[in-house]
Amino acid sequence: MSRFTCVIPAGGAGSRLWPLSRANAPKFLLDLTGSGTSLLRTTWDRLTPLVPSERIMVVTGVAHRDSVMKQLGELDAENLVTESEPKDSSAAIGLAAAILELRDPDAILGSFAADHVIRGSVLFQRAVRTAVQAADQGYIATIGIHPGFPSTGFGYIACGKARSDLAPFDVYDVTEFVEKPDEATASDYLQRGGYLWNAGMFIAKASVLLDQMAESEPEMVAALREIAAAWGTDQAASVRERLWPTLPKVAIDYTVAEPAAQVGKMVCVAAHFEWDDVGDFASVANLLLRGRKGDLAVLGDGAQVLSDNSSGIVVSESDRLVALVGMDDVVVVDTADVLLVTSKQHAQDVKTLVNRMKGHGGKHLL
Amino acid sequence: MSRFTCVIPAGGAGSRLWPLSRANAPKFLLDLTGSGTSLLRTTWDRLTPLVPSERIMVVTGVAHRDSVMKQLGELDAENLVTESEPKDSSAAIGLAAAILELRDPDAILGSFAADHVIRGSVLFQRAVRTAVQAADQGYIATIGIHPGFPSTGFGYIACGKARSDLAPFDVYDVTEFVEKPDEATASDYLQRGGYLWNAGMFIAKASVLLDQMAESEPEMVAALREIAAAWGTDQAASVRERLWPTLPKVAIDYTVAEPAAQVGKMVCVAAHFEWDDVGDFASVANLLLRGRKGDLAVLGDGAQVLSDNSSGIVVSESDRLVALVGMDDVVVVDTADVLLVTSKQHAQDVKTLVNRMKGHGGKHLL
Repeated sequence: MSRFTCVIPAGGAGSRLWPLSRANAPKFLLDLTGSGTSLLRTTWDRLTPLVPSERIMVVTGVAHRDSVMKQLGELDAENLVTESEPKDSSAAIGLAAAILELRDPDAILGSFAADHVIRGSVLFQRAVRTAVQAADQGYIATIGIHPGFPSTGFGYIACGKARSDLAPFDVYDVTEFVEKPDEATASDYLQRGGYLWNAGMFIAKASVLLDQMAESEPEMVAALREIAAAWGTDQAASVRERLWPTLPKVAIDYTVAEPAAQVGKMVCVAAHFEWDDVGDFASVANLLLRGRKGDLAVLGDGAQVLSDNSSGIVVSESDRLVALVGMDDVVVVDTADVLLVTSKQHAQDVKTLVNRMKGHGGKHLL
Repeated sequence: MSRFTCVIPAGGAGSRLWPLSRANAPKFLLDLTGSGTSLLRTTWDRLTPLVPSERIMVVTGVAHRDSVMKQLGELDAENLVTESEPKDSSAAIGLAAAILELRDPDAILGSFAADHVIRGSVLFQRAVRTAVQAADQGYIATIGIHPGFPSTGFGYIACGKARSDLAPFDVYDVTEFVEKPDEATASDYLQRGGYLWNAGMFIAKASVLLDQMAESEPEMVAALREIAAAWGTDQAASVRERLWPTLPKVAIDYTVAEPAAQVGKMVCVAAHFEWDDVGDFASVANLLLRGRKGDLAVLGDGAQVLSDNSSGIVVSESDRLVALVGMDDVVVVDTADVLLVTSKQHAQDVKTLVNRMKGHGGKHLL
């Protein structure tokens, strides 16, 4: 554990959570649980029992630099890595890996999204420690979540044989990563067992991760190592400005996880903590209601809600009264300049609307 | 027509139109058609082609005196009759009748609600003129509307034999008034013909109306005549304060229209103009959409609406963007201090919510 550094990629607008999420208020800066703290801060607080604060690194856009610093007072300046433009997870995590590799050739890195929700911190810590053991053996480890229901909104990890050589229990070979399934397939997974939710957590030696990435993206990894070599010097900005824009936008699932699984280098720690990527308002509602169907969730400090035969969620940034009459599974998001009304069933379609607005003069509201 | 005076009872909060309608912004002061003028002002403008402004009288609550004056600059001060507390239509129209009867024993009065919507002013004028002819013969006339669809939201007038002795066409005896029917009955009425919507318009000699009312409510009519006798004198206020609170709250349908129909004194002018009492937001939507199903109506000056697969109505008092995703027949009413979300199907239930709020500290929002 002494060579273990946590990396928090803090990117992604969360456009399905618009108008709560905005360009200047991305999902990781929001409080989606009513806890009073942002998802980013909660992520940080989840990691500090595992590592001291000087071994937590954050990768974020230059535009969010100040917001991140404000949330994370303990973050070392040299552990704040900024992207001049968003380049997806391969570049973000790859740059962190390249910087860590230079600090310590045997550094182990764990990547944990800044905008997921986890309940059960002791179980989380145990899973991470197990994953670090596997990473120390040269494997790329992920943490898979035992499904609580047949979700069609998450990708799955198909587990192979148990790897008791790596840890006494809960570690398996990864057979393959599967995309979001339809309902029948998701139910089948749940009944058969051995399929875990892909929570997008990766734990590996920095060098192992980069070498795996270099198999499919050699130029990218070379560029990342060149940026890392200049990091902290006078040339840092100019090297990044020259190379960063040339990098491909590609998720780490495609450059690392899937290829590693194919060659038997990927293992999965099966975990039982509660996890959600809270991708849309239906997820936020389910999270707040904890399974209570037919009930109404309310998120917002001053929110006043009057409900007559209604269920779903009200997210309020004002102290206006929100009155609902006979609305099932409704989603109402009440902000200063935009009011969104949709249903849990259509919560995913908010992204479509956001995309439409980009092209039609609505950009100032995004 | 020279003895004809129009009376506009401007009362009723329109609680099914909350939060647009409020105690200090009752339905008759609202613009529900997007015309830019209040329903009250539109009602006035509909009557001035029939009578000069000095023969239009308004009966309203003392609280609305200033608002009414502001809307109706031409209203004679002596034609503004104020109620110290709401006492329903028998008292309101009865007092107007008693005042007119003293001005001219043969005065004919026509009562037209301040908060209905009518399209087709020439047809309206013709119907009123015909009704005044019948009233001159001693009848109490009402104007019935040919149903455009099997409405379950309006009362109906069952018409008997044609009265060509009173006017060449379109005048019938009233057999009975029937309450809001169920759907099967409403469809049956539409197919059989001879059933008209009761638009609550009554045209009669003031004395005939009061004498009919006195059959069932002799004390009430005596009190109204006593208040009228003092009207315009130093004692006006004190007499009203003494008697008005003692009056029963009863609709003119029960004290005049139904009893008159039973004794053959009630006739109906059948009219073809478009009429709606716009009782709830579903009606407002239907009115604005004029039958276009699956479309979205927008009411509000600065309203900006972005709709993705949605229908219904957005009423906006702000310039916020209202974004709808996948909502069918939704009702969104966006005001400064209250946001209402319901459906056209539940538009009537808004009244229930308003009643609940009265008892639970929400009175300041009503």
